[in-house]
Amino acid sequence: QDAAPRYGLIGQMLSQPGKRDELVGYLSDATGAMPGCLSYIIALDSANPDAIWITEVWDGQQSHAASLKLPAVQTAIAKARPIIAGFGQRFETVPVAGL
Amino acid sequence: QDAAPRYGLIGQMLSQPGKRDELVGYLSDATGAMPGCLSYIIALDSANPDAIWITEVWDGQQSHAASLKLPAVQTAIAKARPIIAGFGQRFETVPVAGL
Repeated sequence: QDAAPRYGLIGQMLSQPGKRDELVGYLSDATGAMPGCLSYIIALDSANPDAIWITEVWDGQQSHAASLKLPAVQTAIAKARPIIAGFGQRFETVPVAGL
Repeated sequence: QDAAPRYGLIGQMLSQPGKRDELVGYLSDATGAMPGCLSYIIALDSANPDAIWITEVWDGQQSHAASLKLPAVQTAIAKARPIIAGFGQRFETVPVAGL
């Protein structure tokens, strides 16, 4: 059991100017209880006042894909979309320790 | 209480070729019980077989600085140094949600 590798994402998201806190709020609301999500850390980028970093750990890639169809997540995406200016760097990972 | 902002780091570390698992082992051993450390996730970079990503959350920058002086951490650094090829990107953050 638990043989499938974990799936991780580290990604930067850019808000419209001045909208970072609002964006964090939408994302926080939606990501509290996603099946298969082991960690979902939202952090402000200290070097860019309109950027955040999201570090995600999932029990597998399938759970991440499924999360995008959850009603709470779709609602958050709809709210957030107008204030998302873009996406920065994105790294796929296999989390192996610390959880 | 708990008024100080959290302190976060997202950083890429590069092992000597083929030494990634060994590097992960040293880091995992050392980082299990560091005062003020709220999260320390070690993940393999899916795009680079010699790279890892470390996502750290601390209760403040002071705790992170102090951790570098812990005996267990200094031992791990000494073991790891010969197989660390370098450091990649590094982002400082203020974690705000997900913990």
